[in-house]
Amino acid sequence: MANDIIAKPIRGVVPPMVTPLATDEELDQRGLNQLVEHLIQGGVHGIFILGTTGEGLSLSHSTRRALIQRVNELVEGRVPVLVGVTDTSLLESIALAEFAGQAGASAVVLAPPVYFPHEQAELVRCATLVAERSPLPVMLYNIPALTKIAFEPDTVAQLCEVPNIIGIKDSSGDLDYFQAIRNRTIGRGDWSLFTGHDLLLGQAVASGAHGGVCGGANVFPRLFVDLYEAAVTSNHARVADLQKSILKLTELYQLRGNSTLSVIRGIKSALVELGVCSGRMAAPASELPEVCRHQVRDILSSVYEEFPSITL
Amino acid sequence: MANDIIAKPIRGVVPPMVTPLATDEELDQRGLNQLVEHLIQGGVHGIFILGTTGEGLSLSHSTRRALIQRVNELVEGRVPVLVGVTDTSLLESIALAEFAGQAGASAVVLAPPVYFPHEQAELVRCATLVAERSPLPVMLYNIPALTKIAFEPDTVAQLCEVPNIIGIKDSSGDLDYFQAIRNRTIGRGDWSLFTGHDLLLGQAVASGAHGGVCGGANVFPRLFVDLYEAAVTSNHARVADLQKSILKLTELYQLRGNSTLSVIRGIKSALVELGVCSGRMAAPASELPEVCRHQVRDILSSVYEEFPSITL
Amino acid sequence: MANDIIAKPIRGVVPPMVTPLATDEELDQRGLNQLVEHLIQGGVHGIFILGTTGEGLSLSHSTRRALIQRVNELVEGRVPVLVGVTDTSLLESIALAEFAGQAGASAVVLAPPVYFPHEQAELVRCATLVAERSPLPVMLYNIPALTKIAFEPDTVAQLCEVPNIIGIKDSSGDLDYFQAIRNRTIGRGDWSLFTGHDLLLGQAVASGAHGGVCGGANVFPRLFVDLYEAAVTSNHARVADLQKSILKLTELYQLRGNSTLSVIRGIKSALVELGVCSGRMAAPASELPEVCRHQVRDILSSVYEEFPSITL
Amino acid sequence: MANDIIAKPIRGVVPPMVTPLATDEELDQRGLNQLVEHLIQGGVHGIFILGTTGEGLSLSHSTRRALIQRVNELVEGRVPVLVGVTDTSLLESIALAEFAGQAGASAVVLAPPVYFPHEQAELVRCATLVAERSPLPVMLYNIPALTKIAFEPDTVAQLCEVPNIIGIKDSSGDLDYFQAIRNRTIGRGDWSLFTGHDLLLGQAVASGAHGGVCGGANVFPRLFVDLYEAAVTSNHARVADLQKSILKLTELYQLRGNSTLSVIRGIKSALVELGVCSGRMAAPASELPEVCRHQVRDILSSVYEEFPSITL
Repeated sequence: MANDIIAKPIRGVVPPMVTPLATDEELDQRGLNQLVEHLIQGGVHGIFILGTTGEGLSLSHSTRRALIQRVNELVEGRVPVLVGVTDTSLLESIALAEFAGQAGASAVVLAPPVYFPHEQAELVRCATLVAERSPLPVMLYNIPALTKIAFEPDTVAQLCEVPNIIGIKDSSGDLDYFQAIRNRTIGRGDWSLFTGHDLLLGQAVASGAHGGVCGGANVFPRLFVDLYEAAVTSNHARVADLQKSILKLTELYQLRGNSTLSVIRGIKSALVELGVCSGRMAAPASELPEVCRHQVRDILSSVYEEFPSITL
Repeated sequence: MANDIIAKPIRGVVPPMVTPLATDEELDQRGLNQLVEHLIQGGVHGIFILGTTGEGLSLSHSTRRALIQRVNELVEGRVPVLVGVTDTSLLESIALAEFAGQAGASAVVLAPPVYFPHEQAELVRCATLVAERSPLPVMLYNIPALTKIAFEPDTVAQLCEVPNIIGIKDSSGDLDYFQAIRNRTIGRGDWSLFTGHDLLLGQAVASGAHGGVCGGANVFPRLFVDLYEAAVTSNHARVADLQKSILKLTELYQLRGNSTLSVIRGIKSALVELGVCSGRMAAPASELPEVCRHQVRDILSSVYEEFPSITL
Repeated sequence: MANDIIAKPIRGVVPPMVTPLATDEELDQRGLNQLVEHLIQGGVHGIFILGTTGEGLSLSHSTRRALIQRVNELVEGRVPVLVGVTDTSLLESIALAEFAGQAGASAVVLAPPVYFPHEQAELVRCATLVAERSPLPVMLYNIPALTKIAFEPDTVAQLCEVPNIIGIKDSSGDLDYFQAIRNRTIGRGDWSLFTGHDLLLGQAVASGAHGGVCGGANVFPRLFVDLYEAAVTSNHARVADLQKSILKLTELYQLRGNSTLSVIRGIKSALVELGVCSGRMAAPASELPEVCRHQVRDILSSVYEEFPSITL
Repeated sequence: MANDIIAKPIRGVVPPMVTPLATDEELDQRGLNQLVEHLIQGGVHGIFILGTTGEGLSLSHSTRRALIQRVNELVEGRVPVLVGVTDTSLLESIALAEFAGQAGASAVVLAPPVYFPHEQAELVRCATLVAERSPLPVMLYNIPALTKIAFEPDTVAQLCEVPNIIGIKDSSGDLDYFQAIRNRTIGRGDWSLFTGHDLLLGQAVASGAHGGVCGGANVFPRLFVDLYEAAVTSNHARVADLQKSILKLTELYQLRGNSTLSVIRGIKSALVELGVCSGRMAAPASELPEVCRHQVRDILSSVYEEFPSITL
C-alpha cells in the first residue's frame, strides 16, 4: 500500500481539474500542460482529475488512462494527484485505481456505482472492495444529484473504520448532511472532510472541513487558496472580501442552462479567454456558444477589478 | 391595499414560528403567548406563521385562522406578522390572505400550489391572481424539496414586476439559485430577498440578502439577531463566532430522522426544555421520544456555554 | 357506521368524475346534472368525485362540499358515490369524510397526506385515524406520482387489517406493485382492489382486480363498462376489441403536454364536444386551446366508428 | 453497414439474457452454453445481451467483450444477437458497437448516456453519433427509472428519421408514453417497437408492438413465445391463459426487495433451480439468500402446473 505517500488528513484547495480536449478522443496536450502549471503556480494543495468537473465518466477509458499518466508526469510530485475512479462497474473502478497507483498518483476518489439503484449495504461492500484492492488510499465522493444515491451518515461512519478509506468529499450542498458526517467521523484523526461547493469553502473550513474541491479554482486558483488560508487563520474580513469575488466568478456557471454541464462549460470557456486551454466539452455536450464570450470576459474583468493580485 | 403598512424591503430575522398545539385541533394558548414574547424579547424583526416550520399545511383551516387571529392580537403591531397561505387550492390561499388582512397581518407568503405538477406559466398565473386579490403584499416562497417545483429564475424575474409581490424567501439551500434570483431582482429597490437556511444567514446577508427566515430562531432568537446585525455591519469575526453556536444548535434537527419533520420536532423539543410551549406535532407526525431529551439538553447547554448572553 | 350501505367488495367501473366549473368558484350546475346522467345511463357501477381527475385538491373547501352535496342529491342512491378526501391536513380529510357521510355518500377515498415527506408508520397512523373517525368506509388511494410517496405493500397489508378500510385504488401504473398488494390482501374477502389506469382495466380484472377508476369513462362510460363485463366473463376477444377503442380515446390525454393536468384537460374538452359540460379547468390550470378542438373531434369520431353502439 | 443482416422490423420475443458469472470477473462458461441453448430451444426470436437484466453496466469491459464474443459463437446465427452498448461515455458505446459488429452480432441497443443530466438535443446528438459510427443498426432503449432521462416522444420522432436507427425498446412501463411513441413512428415500415415489461407483452402486441424484451423469458422462454404467437393471431383466450402463468412467474421479482436488482436476482435464482446456470450477481449486488430458495421452487412449481407443456 502506498498510502504513506500522502500526508493525512489531506488539506487545502484541490481543484477538480477540467480535462482539456483537442478532439473527442484526444487530449489538448499543450493546454493540459499549461493548465497544470496554472494550478500549481496558483498555489493549489493538490489536483483532482477525472471528477465530475473533469467529465471523467464521459471520457473513454483509454483517454482516462492517458490523462492519469500525463498529469502525474507533469506534476512530478509537486502536489498530490487524486484520481476519480467512479464508474458503473466496480471492477473498472479497481482497474483505474491500480493504473493510478502505477502512474504515481496519491489517492483515488470514489462515488457510488452509477446506474443500478443500490442499497446502503451494497455501497459499503463496494467501497470496502475497492479499498481492499486499491494500491492507493480511497476518498469517498458524495454527489447524490448525479449518482441519485447518497452515502448516508451511518454508511460514512461505517466506512470511516476501513483503514484505506481516508475521507470524503461532499458535493451535496446540504449543510445539514455536512454537519452530520462531520459529527460521525470527527473521532478519526487522519480523516479528511472536503466540501465540493465553491461558495461554501469559507464556511465549511470554519465548520471543520479540511479543504475544498472547488471548480472555480480551475480559473483563479489563487483566489481560492487565499480564501482557504484566510479561513484557517480566522481572518474573517479577508474571507468575506474574497467570497465576493468568488460570488462574481460563479456567474460563469449559469451562462447557458443551469445544470452540472453548464458549470463545466462556464469554467472551460473562462480558460479559453485566459489562453490556458481548449473549451471543447466531452461529447455529446457542446461548448459555450461564441455569442456568450463577451459575458465570460465581463465576469473575468469584474473579478480582476476586485482582486487585482490574481496571477495567472 | 394595505401594503403601505410594512416598510420595504422587509429586513432582518423573521423566524418561521412553530405552532404550539394542545391537542390535534387546539392551540396551546399559554405556550403561544410565551413563544410570541420569547421571540419579540429576542429582538426579531418579524414573525412568520403557518410556514413549513409552522406545519401550516397540516393544520385544519379553522386552526390556521385561530392562529392568525391570536398571533396578531398578541403581537399588537410590535413587529410585522407574515402569514403563510400556501395550499393545494389557490382559492383557499386567497381566502387565507383575506382573513390575514382583516386580522391585521403585514404580508402573506406563498409557495407554488401543492399536488399537481404545474408549469412555470401556471405558477405565474397563480402568484399573479393571489397578488391581485390579496389585501396584503405577497412574498414568494421557494421550497422545491416540498413543493417539488421551483419558481425558476425567469419566473421570479417576471413576478418581480407585479407591484403587490414584494420579495422571495428561498429555502432551496442552493446558492447558485440564490445568486441567480438575486441578479434577476436587484433592480427593484423595495424587493426583499430572504434565505430560509439557518446556516446560510451570514453568508446570504454578505451576498445581498435582506434577512433570514431561520427555524433555529424559535429557540434562540437573539443568536440569529446578533448574527444578522454583525453581518450587516461587516463584523466578520463576530459572525464567525456566532455561526459556531448556530452550528451546534442545528444538531437538534437530526435527533430523529433526517427530514423536514425532524427539524420541526427538534425545535419543538427544545422549546419544551426551555419551558416555552408544548412539543406536540401536528398529526400524523409524532413528538420526539422521551429518550432523546437528554440530547436536547446537552445541545442547549453547549450553546449556552458558547453564548452566555442569551436571554430567553 | 354506515359501511353496511355499500356492498363489498365494491366492483366495476367507477369513473373519477371531472368537476364541471362555471367560474373558478362555482359549479356548472347544468353540466353537472348532465354529466351525472351521462355516467349513470352509461352503466357505471359507482361515481368517484373529488379525486385527482376531479381536481379535488385545487377546489376550495366550500366548492368541494357543494359538489358532495349536489352529486349525492342527483345520484339519489342509484349507484354508490365515493368521495375523495385527500388533503394536506388529516383533520380536513376527517371533516370531509364527516360531511360526505351526512350527504349520503357510500365511501371515502384517501391518499397519503400531501406536502410533508412522511414515513410509512405515519401513513399507517394517518389512515387509521381517518378510518376511526370517518362515518364511511375508507378506500386507500396510491398515486405516488402526485403524492411523492407510495403506500408500500407492507403498509397496505397492515392497513388491510383495519375493519373500516375496505380496499385500495392503485394509480401507480406499476404492475409489479399491483401484484404485490394483491398478494398481500387476497385473504380478506370484502377487500376491493381497483386499478386507476384506463389501459390496464382488462388486464387488471384478469389479474384479480375488482374494477377500475378510469378517467376515460367520463367520456364514454359504456365502453369501459362493456370491457369490464367482457373481462369478468372471460370474453377475451371482446376485451381486445374494446381495448383498441380505449387506446384511441387516450390520445385525448396528450394533446397539450404530457402531465396529469393534460389528461384532465383532454377529458373535459371531449365533454365539451359531446355537449355534456363546461371544459373550464380549476385555476391556475388552463383549458385546452380552441386550436386543438378539431383533434378532439377527430379522436371522438374514430372511437365512434369503432364502437357505434356508444350511447351518450 | 451490416444492417441488411437482420430482417426488419425485428419481431417476437427477445429475452434480455442474464449474464452467468463464475466469479466477479469470469463467465460461467458451462452455464452460458446451457442458457443459450435453453433460450433457443424455447423458441425465442433473438437474444439481447448486456442489457439491464444482463447487468451490462456492472461488468468490466473485458467481461462484456468476452460475453459478446462467446454468445455469438454459441448462437451461430440461429437467431439475431442484440448487444447493449449503453455506457457513461458515448465513445465506449461506439467501441462496443464496433466490437459487436466484428463478433457477428445483428444490432446494438443504446440507452441515453448515464451520469450527466443531458438535454434532449444532446440525446439526439449522442444517438446520431453512435448510429453513424456503429457498423450495426441501433435500437434505442428507453428506461428512465435507471437513466433518469427519457427519450421524449419528439426526440424519438426525430431519431426515427436516422436510417441506421431501427427501433426502440420501451421499459418505462408507461402505456401513455408507449402510445405516444407508437403514434410518432408508425409511418416508418421497418421500425421496431418493443416493450420491456413482462406483463404488458400481450397488450403491447395488441397495441402495435412488434415484440417484447421480457426478463421472465430467461426462465420459461416458451411461455412468452406462445403468448406472443397467441397475441399476433388474436387468440385472446390463450393470451389470457398464459398471462396468468406469467403473473405467477413475476412473483420471483419481489422475493428480496423491490428494485431492478431484485428482478435480476429472482431470475438468476430460478435458473439455478432449473440447473441452467450460476445465480451469482455482478458485484456489489448479492445473490438471493439460501433461505428464499423454497419460495423460488414453489413459484416454479405453480407455473409448471398451469403450463405443463413447458420444455426447458
